[in-house]
Amino acid sequence: MPRLASKPQTITASPIRRIATLLDEARRKSDIISFGGGAPSLPPPQEVIDHLINYIKSYPQKAVGYGATRGMIELRELIAEDLKKYWNVSYDPKEEIMIVNGGTEGIYLALGAILEKDEEVIVLDPTYLGYHEPIKLFGGRVRTVPVSVENGYQPKIEDVKKVISPLTKAFILLSPDNPTGRVVTEEFVRDLVDLAVEHDFWIIFDAVYKHISYGRPTPWVDSFKGARERTITINSFSKEASIPGFRLGYITGPPEAIEVMEKLKQYVSLAPDTPGQIAMIKFLESGIKDRYLNEIVLPTYKRRRDFMYKCIQEYLPEAKTSLPEGAFYFFVNLEEYLKAMERDDEEFANRLLYRKSVVVIPGKYFGEMGKGHVRMTFVSEPEERIEEGLKRMNAYVYSYM
Amino acid sequence: MPRLASKPQTITASPIRRIATLLDEARRKSDIISFGGGAPSLPPPQEVIDHLINYIKSYPQKAVGYGATRGMIELRELIAEDLKKYWNVSYDPKEEIMIVNGGTEGIYLALGAILEKDEEVIVLDPTYLGYHEPIKLFGGRVRTVPVSVENGYQPKIEDVKKVISPLTKAFILLSPDNPTGRVVTEEFVRDLVDLAVEHDFWIIFDAVYKHISYGRPTPWVDSFKGARERTITINSFSKEASIPGFRLGYITGPPEAIEVMEKLKQYVSLAPDTPGQIAMIKFLESGIKDRYLNEIVLPTYKRRRDFMYKCIQEYLPEAKTSLPEGAFYFFVNLEEYLKAMERDDEEFANRLLYRKSVVVIPGKYFGEMGKGHVRMTFVSEPEERIEEGLKRMNAYVYSYM
Repeated sequence: MPRLASKPQTITASPIRRIATLLDEARRKSDIISFGGGAPSLPPPQEVIDHLINYIKSYPQKAVGYGATRGMIELRELIAEDLKKYWNVSYDPKEEIMIVNGGTEGIYLALGAILEKDEEVIVLDPTYLGYHEPIKLFGGRVRTVPVSVENGYQPKIEDVKKVISPLTKAFILLSPDNPTGRVVTEEFVRDLVDLAVEHDFWIIFDAVYKHISYGRPTPWVDSFKGARERTITINSFSKEASIPGFRLGYITGPPEAIEVMEKLKQYVSLAPDTPGQIAMIKFLESGIKDRYLNEIVLPTYKRRRDFMYKCIQEYLPEAKTSLPEGAFYFFVNLEEYLKAMERDDEEFANRLLYRKSVVVIPGKYFGEMGKGHVRMTFVSEPEERIEEGLKRMNAYVYSYM
Repeated sequence: MPRLASKPQTITASPIRRIATLLDEARRKSDIISFGGGAPSLPPPQEVIDHLINYIKSYPQKAVGYGATRGMIELRELIAEDLKKYWNVSYDPKEEIMIVNGGTEGIYLALGAILEKDEEVIVLDPTYLGYHEPIKLFGGRVRTVPVSVENGYQPKIEDVKKVISPLTKAFILLSPDNPTGRVVTEEFVRDLVDLAVEHDFWIIFDAVYKHISYGRPTPWVDSFKGARERTITINSFSKEASIPGFRLGYITGPPEAIEVMEKLKQYVSLAPDTPGQIAMIKFLESGIKDRYLNEIVLPTYKRRRDFMYKCIQEYLPEAKTSLPEGAFYFFVNLEEYLKAMERDDEEFANRLLYRKSVVVIPGKYFGEMGKGHVRMTFVSEPEERIEEGLKRMNAYVYSYM
């Protein structure tokens, strides 16, 4: 075999994808309770499914035909209306919005469009697993800003200032956050935008969980003075419409940036999924989205969040965590238990799956600061299973105490 | 706005995607006859559509749920059976096959997995538009081997030898070819594989049109001695199942290469489309594919090919072309006419659209050797419209003669 390229060999495969594979196998053997994955656990809105089925039935060829690289203009117009309605920011659907193949492609294109070799991108620690490797693929370097449970996982602007350098090219802000559930404060965003203007760097605002919040909504970076011309926003339909299998999202940004990302996209994936776009046009039309989120998704997830919080306090009283304001996850500091067990978070997670058939994600996968934590999804299991899972965790940790 | 990265700005947007946009607008104004696009013009098999509809109806959540990065194992197993049946080559569905988001992503991942800065990739000239730019994005350089109508657009191995250098990392072979319709000879593939072994380079075998051939099938690169460990094969469901809107294809390669491409894919697109995979499982099961290709697709396309050939000879007698053995296109040398008109192929195409509402693609888009040619798709229009289009071209060129 001729040589493979060196850089792609140095990047690490996502450990969560690895766990997904393990899990598939484990599930066949026993009754697994999963606090692991980050997939929505509800079906998409029935009206959207019905519409899609009717459309495919009536226009099979059109339903699966080629589309434009930027996506359907009808969908982009509806997205512009939607962003105006929810965040009071106006985007030109032709020039400032592009449909992408999921938030993952959005991040990839954004980093590809801005990064030069050796430039630095600041991310929080812990953070989503999917940022470090594409930064490295484009030749960039990762700088991190620590956050911790004591402060509700909120970043401090002084810590950001400490890592800014002449090579700083971008800051990635995920809010609501994976793995911590944190929604950033208005104050932090204002200060961050000021820093970005002063030091002329980009903000990549990863808003894939934007509609999954249980109290105040996330501040919208673009609505802060000076932000618009230096912000690329990443959005996904996976979480808000529960359709991750269509790989569909969208990005916003300055027209020049969208143009460069469109050129990249032509050679990365050519165009987004057509039937998914047809489904999402229906989703954004005629109030389906509002009803789905407010009557089904958010009440269900909020109930499960509150219930898991109660269970954590009851069954893992020595754990420290922060009530997530958004997204799907508790990020739980288990140091008290891990000390007694003489295990790190990864060994803990492996043993817990083996001994008690409960899946949690080791915190160290999300960064240095994640060590001693586990991430626990509260959307994947109904209440009685959440309690059962926490009971199993209790039995496991107290066998060592 | 902070700086954008320099390299993505230097790549060119695909002119065909630009034409698609123009065409959309033009279509509203007049009766356009399109010999332009490369999209299949038939609906997908009805059984596949019915199955997909039933599946979505019965399992809406599963139908649009997350899948594995490599794709569904059931689909990969069916692909392995299919490749065995058609090309008599055995692939391990776990280790040697990965589902990708269309042939475009396949090419992108393959180049990304093998190319180091300044390494060279050999492509034929003319060739598909989508190779040059991703080669450049990964820091590579393009070397070209000319082919011409006199030789039925068949490449000569001596010409390949002339451009091999110590920096040669890969050769991209597209067969059946876009834009020429050429199916390469067994002899050429054998010699190419020998060269690849001798000089230790990769062959990227782009087989997206593999089932669209009207006589002898394309030789399968992997079946030649020594090829297997240095070949990545790119396949697409877009052409053979007429489902380009699902962005679905697959690649084969040595396990180590698949592993690296999977890692890249995690950060490029995470996973392939789920409903599309469900549809393609049905397509490969129980003989639907064979019936669809042999009873519908190939007879329809072959009839149109033969008819367009007759029309070209009748209405453009000074043109030179080669009867395509596969794919969707005639690549037509119009030099005799263009000389008289004092126009190049791009001006010709622009004027033809403006004056006669007929779309053809300028040959120079496909490389230096494409100058003086146009590409004409024969699958997009039924026979009477093909004749009408050629009549209009005749009226246009003879107004100058």
